[in-house]
Amino acid sequence: MIDMDKFPVTDGGICAAKGFRASGYYCGIKAFMQTGADGNESPVPGKKNDIALVVADVVCNTAGVYTSNKVKGAPVVVTRDNLAVNGGRAKAVIVNSGNANTCNGDGEEKARAMCGMVAEKLGITPDMVIVASTGVIGQVLPLEPIQKAIDPLYDALSYTGNVEAATAIMTTDTVKKEYAVKFTVGGKECTLGGMAKGSGMIHPNMATTLNFISTDCAVSSEMLQKALSQVVKITYNCLSVDGDQSTNDTCMLMSSGLAGNAEITSEGADFDAFKAALTQVMANLTRMLAKDGEGATKLVTCVCTGAPDLDTAIIIAKSVIRSPLVKCAMYGADANCGRIMCAMGYADTDCDVTEADVYYISKAGRILVCEKGLGLKFDEDLAKSILEEDEIEIFVDLHRGSADATAWGCDLTYDYVKINGDYRS
Amino acid sequence: MIDMDKFPVTDGGICAAKGFRASGYYCGIKAFMQTGADGNESPVPGKKNDIALVVADVVCNTAGVYTSNKVKGAPVVVTRDNLAVNGGRAKAVIVNSGNANTCNGDGEEKARAMCGMVAEKLGITPDMVIVASTGVIGQVLPLEPIQKAIDPLYDALSYTGNVEAATAIMTTDTVKKEYAVKFTVGGKECTLGGMAKGSGMIHPNMATTLNFISTDCAVSSEMLQKALSQVVKITYNCLSVDGDQSTNDTCMLMSSGLAGNAEITSEGADFDAFKAALTQVMANLTRMLAKDGEGATKLVTCVCTGAPDLDTAIIIAKSVIRSPLVKCAMYGADANCGRIMCAMGYADTDCDVTEADVYYISKAGRILVCEKGLGLKFDEDLAKSILEEDEIEIFVDLHRGSADATAWGCDLTYDYVKINGDYRS
Repeated sequence: MIDMDKFPVTDGGICAAKGFRASGYYCGIKAFMQTGADGNESPVPGKKNDIALVVADVVCNTAGVYTSNKVKGAPVVVTRDNLAVNGGRAKAVIVNSGNANTCNGDGEEKARAMCGMVAEKLGITPDMVIVASTGVIGQVLPLEPIQKAIDPLYDALSYTGNVEAATAIMTTDTVKKEYAVKFTVGGKECTLGGMAKGSGMIHPNMATTLNFISTDCAVSSEMLQKALSQVVKITYNCLSVDGDQSTNDTCMLMSSGLAGNAEITSEGADFDAFKAALTQVMANLTRMLAKDGEGATKLVTCVCTGAPDLDTAIIIAKSVIRSPLVKCAMYGADANCGRIMCAMGYADTDCDVTEADVYYISKAGRILVCEKGLGLKFDEDLAKSILEEDEIEIFVDLHRGSADATAWGCDLTYDYVKINGDYRS
Repeated sequence: MIDMDKFPVTDGGICAAKGFRASGYYCGIKAFMQTGADGNESPVPGKKNDIALVVADVVCNTAGVYTSNKVKGAPVVVTRDNLAVNGGRAKAVIVNSGNANTCNGDGEEKARAMCGMVAEKLGITPDMVIVASTGVIGQVLPLEPIQKAIDPLYDALSYTGNVEAATAIMTTDTVKKEYAVKFTVGGKECTLGGMAKGSGMIHPNMATTLNFISTDCAVSSEMLQKALSQVVKITYNCLSVDGDQSTNDTCMLMSSGLAGNAEITSEGADFDAFKAALTQVMANLTRMLAKDGEGATKLVTCVCTGAPDLDTAIIIAKSVIRSPLVKCAMYGADANCGRIMCAMGYADTDCDVTEADVYYISKAGRILVCEKGLGLKFDEDLAKSILEEDEIEIFVDLHRGSADATAWGCDLTYDYVKINGDYRS
């Protein structure tokens, strides 16, 4: 099981680690797209930020995990190229919301231009800039408001700018997502923290949503990538809000190395400590993303235990969390065990699930509704009270081995339909 | 493309072909489960039928396709066994709604008992009876009301009993589904027709929902199975209401042979004619199932053309139809092309979809919203009027070959959530 509380939590999000400044700004990308304005308007005060800048004090070892959707956002292509060109390093991140810069013809050119603007301001090469975009797909991204935002973003950079940045990357998110921990490597106190966005179009397969994580723990690019890939598999890739996998999913991990520890260049105790910290941060961000799923009233997690191996546990837990019928039952506080069995049964694995036990667990208690694959008569009042809580765990024991995994999701509600029935407006 | 109107349509559903009688009856399975009554109550007049019987005048060559869910309903197991035992023959069908007889421990025993009751009444062996159940999973099926129903079902058998039977198999369906055609094989007029049920928990993978089809065209069991498997692939398996795949999906095809044609025992012109009739019936039943999807206000079909092969066309069309975000956009009449591109991009195929054209088509017109993978500026008013119709086609051309496929689905609405938030009550 993932330890969600191993290390002490700290404030600061993407700025928690030493050596990272951030800022956010409202430049009016959506307004510009709608009015076709010429870029001369002043930003509207009080509007939600729509562009963020993160700048590291030093060049950072950097790792990334990206969407596996064949229709890839232009920023994904450009960021991946940049890291390949410079051997896994970066010094800055520029992110906008309001337009995904995808399926629009000139996306790569525009994404490279965004890197160029930041590079020019900072006096670095464009390949040192990570670029990401989120929002509507299939529309041309206007560069005018972004160009205008570079100076104010730069001027606002601050070691406490994390909230401004975390707010800027939100789309249909109702709350910002930040999380950071302190841990020790080689006798040095290290910090690792990050920010995430994502609410709909979230399905596990190679990172999900936009995620930016920074640390001052010194780690080589290679080991950063190893840790990130392993942890993504059991955290972000176990998240599903609606089964749709975004074109722009990006998860970046940057290390400033300013904690002063000897650089982690191989597996061992230091690497394990680093990975545990990364796991705690990413699992908690994943949990926040699930809880803020579009229209969600409940966080629903599925813990699959007794699996023959990790992959099987993940596949089955995800199949349960993804099922629209399970999601509706959780919304309606209906302790339907058939839908859980059904979703396990069509999961894409050969594992025999026909003898599973199924429990519902929440603050209000714990109830066994299915034993060895057979539905039980149970206390409906207790079941209802358990499912009326806003955080519910579906606990499944397959009795087929000792591996386990957790998947995070949410209920399916009227509001999901409402939000997505007219997202563009 | 599938010809949905090739042959003339006729009335009669499952009784349209020569040699099939049917009946339906309300025996109170759900009421019995809720009150734990002792089976002595009289059936309630005016309640929807919950049990159906179909009896053929002669032993029929029979083929079946069943769910691929690893958690299989007991009736699926028993029916498959029966056909295996007797070499693909059957004389009767017994089906109940209100309880899926799945995940309850004694399901197989109960399903065999249902076959036994019918067999005893008809003076045949139990393996000549097809059994199916639909409804809640994980609850014990009471046999008392079913036993009481056998006599009235038998007494009511009629060559015009198709509507009584089609009504009995409905669960959350709002309309009964029947369809039949007349066609010619070897100079003889043949008829093929059927009934289907299914509204939620519908996802393509080996038949979907409950489907019973009868014909008087003489066809060997082997060729029946061949035709059924081929046609299921491009019809029922291209249907998705919610992405959940039922434990009880069953599609049965019975041939009485009473049309008088020489039995079809190999491929050729006769087999092709038979398959075309079967395709028309199953495609139209599929369309009805999609249109009556739980909470649906719109039938949404995706036609994928320009694919390198049939499998690719099917996978991509189904991915689009299954996407919750596409379904919400259709509900909201939002001509969002990004969600279509996104859903094609994460479809489980290697095919390059990045240069696809995407059109929306309805009675109100036709509009190109994405060309060679790039979102277009389009007439929003026209797009809105097209998407406000109750039957919408998403037409996609991949420009990668000449294969095509159609997938059928519906929009995702508040009512889907409402229906499934408390299905058991």
